[in-house]
Amino acid sequence: VAPRLSKILGADVAIASETFQHTGSFKFRAAYNVALNVPQREIIAASSGNFGQGLAYACQLLGKDCTVVMPDSSAKVKIDAIREYGGRVDLINIRHISRADRVTRLINESPEAYRASAYDDPLVIEGNSTLGEELAALDKKFDYILVPIGGGGLASGLVEGFTRSGYAAKVVGAEPQMANDAARSLRAGRLLENQGEPRTIADGARTVSLGQHNWEILKEGLAGIVEVSEDQIAEGVRLLYRYANLKAEPTGALSIGALLAMATQFRGKSVCCIVTGGNVDAEIYKRLLE
Amino acid sequence: VAPRLSKILGADVAIASETFQHTGSFKFRAAYNVALNVPQREIIAASSGNFGQGLAYACQLLGKDCTVVMPDSSAKVKIDAIREYGGRVDLINIRHISRADRVTRLINESPEAYRASAYDDPLVIEGNSTLGEELAALDKKFDYILVPIGGGGLASGLVEGFTRSGYAAKVVGAEPQMANDAARSLRAGRLLENQGEPRTIADGARTVSLGQHNWEILKEGLAGIVEVSEDQIAEGVRLLYRYANLKAEPTGALSIGALLAMATQFRGKSVCCIVTGGNVDAEIYKRLLE
Repeated sequence: VAPRLSKILGADVAIASETFQHTGSFKFRAAYNVALNVPQREIIAASSGNFGQGLAYACQLLGKDCTVVMPDSSAKVKIDAIREYGGRVDLINIRHISRADRVTRLINESPEAYRASAYDDPLVIEGNSTLGEELAALDKKFDYILVPIGGGGLASGLVEGFTRSGYAAKVVGAEPQMANDAARSLRAGRLLENQGEPRTIADGARTVSLGQHNWEILKEGLAGIVEVSEDQIAEGVRLLYRYANLKAEPTGALSIGALLAMATQFRGKSVCCIVTGGNVDAEIYKRLLE
Repeated sequence: VAPRLSKILGADVAIASETFQHTGSFKFRAAYNVALNVPQREIIAASSGNFGQGLAYACQLLGKDCTVVMPDSSAKVKIDAIREYGGRVDLINIRHISRADRVTRLINESPEAYRASAYDDPLVIEGNSTLGEELAALDKKFDYILVPIGGGGLASGLVEGFTRSGYAAKVVGAEPQMANDAARSLRAGRLLENQGEPRTIADGARTVSLGQHNWEILKEGLAGIVEVSEDQIAEGVRLLYRYANLKAEPTGALSIGALLAMATQFRGKSVCCIVTGGNVDAEIYKRLLE
């Protein structure tokens, strides 16, 4: 519970932070469940961010091998982190080959390997559903759960976990306005894509569209999606810094940004804001604190 | 537990964070215990930092009044925070009157009020001892507990809590080299003072000396004190940012700085680093992240 944030945001706000999860984001839940349950000893995935770290650490714990395809322009701290967790990093020039094509090529070279998706996989959704079960087990009951949405892996996991637990909280997605494929999909009733990779500061939500498995769950399971401006994302990072002592990455602060964007909708309600991760380069973080 | 920090620091490191305590630091434990147990309805204290916030919030919860004496040069966020928690802020020009003298004058004007100390008070030590009891109740047992030391309120509380719980971990203080009155006192066997208020970046440790009550406990109860350089304090803040996603104030990072300062002493040992608080101005934090 966050009394000062609650006063500022006009709602009864609690924060569920995944920034202290293994590898610093919720993605470890999914990655571990994948690595544990697939029979393959080798796993290949494209990820420039948190899924790669989660997968590398999960494979290290389980004694499996993993290769993470990343653009050669990725931040050095992210490359280092994956290597530190024992993962193999495969750097590509994305002007010459797309991440998906590179993964396909690696799978063709190692047909016994598992091709992992960061969101579009029932094992990912099942892994993330553990957060839903944990929230459902709390004494405190919420009117709304606000969750950052990119590929939809966590949102669909929450819906699944809540359904299984008989918990009736409304799940609302928090999506960057600049990458609003999920909001448009929900309005249109069919899965739509962004044109190219959106340049939102919320780098965990730069996905082209929701995954198929995620969409099947979310098209009925979501109570709505709030579109969050870049300024509101940045303000969310600052509010968490100042009033909750919480270091959040921009994607993680989407849920606070959604409260800023739709203050009247949530006024006086009890809202759980999920902060999905805390891995943000110091340079970017310093700029956000200005 | 912090696997990446452990690898870097060469010890089995766990972090006990008080940055998510009410008002963002351990001081709330002490302040609440004081406000709860003194019969007075009004409490007066000098504090430019965390004790003032903790006291203001404790008094708000308990329906008491409090006045916090602060230099008029204090950061606006700190003044605002105390007011937000319902405290009265008494701003002074410290070139004209000392904080202690101003508190004395206020007490003379309101003789029915309680004069609270941030550290030198058995009720403060008792309040802080709850952290010792919580650590003693963990399954995990530590060789060392590293605790930032200023006036000695938390360190003496830990010793008291551990003694009561029959927990034999060694308590080691982490003190700024620039404000090493406690280390010198321990060596000399008598209570020594700093000359004036030290300008260490660890603003929670700018006390002139340990309190009398604290010294009585610490002269026998501490296993040692590590003196930490300003650079090591700053590096502690950065390591917590990068490898633990933890926003710590400089004083809070003293315990990590102590591991850097005395790496060989702690190599291979299980060490619990207490991070005492997270309230740091964005301007200072940005500079520390450079």
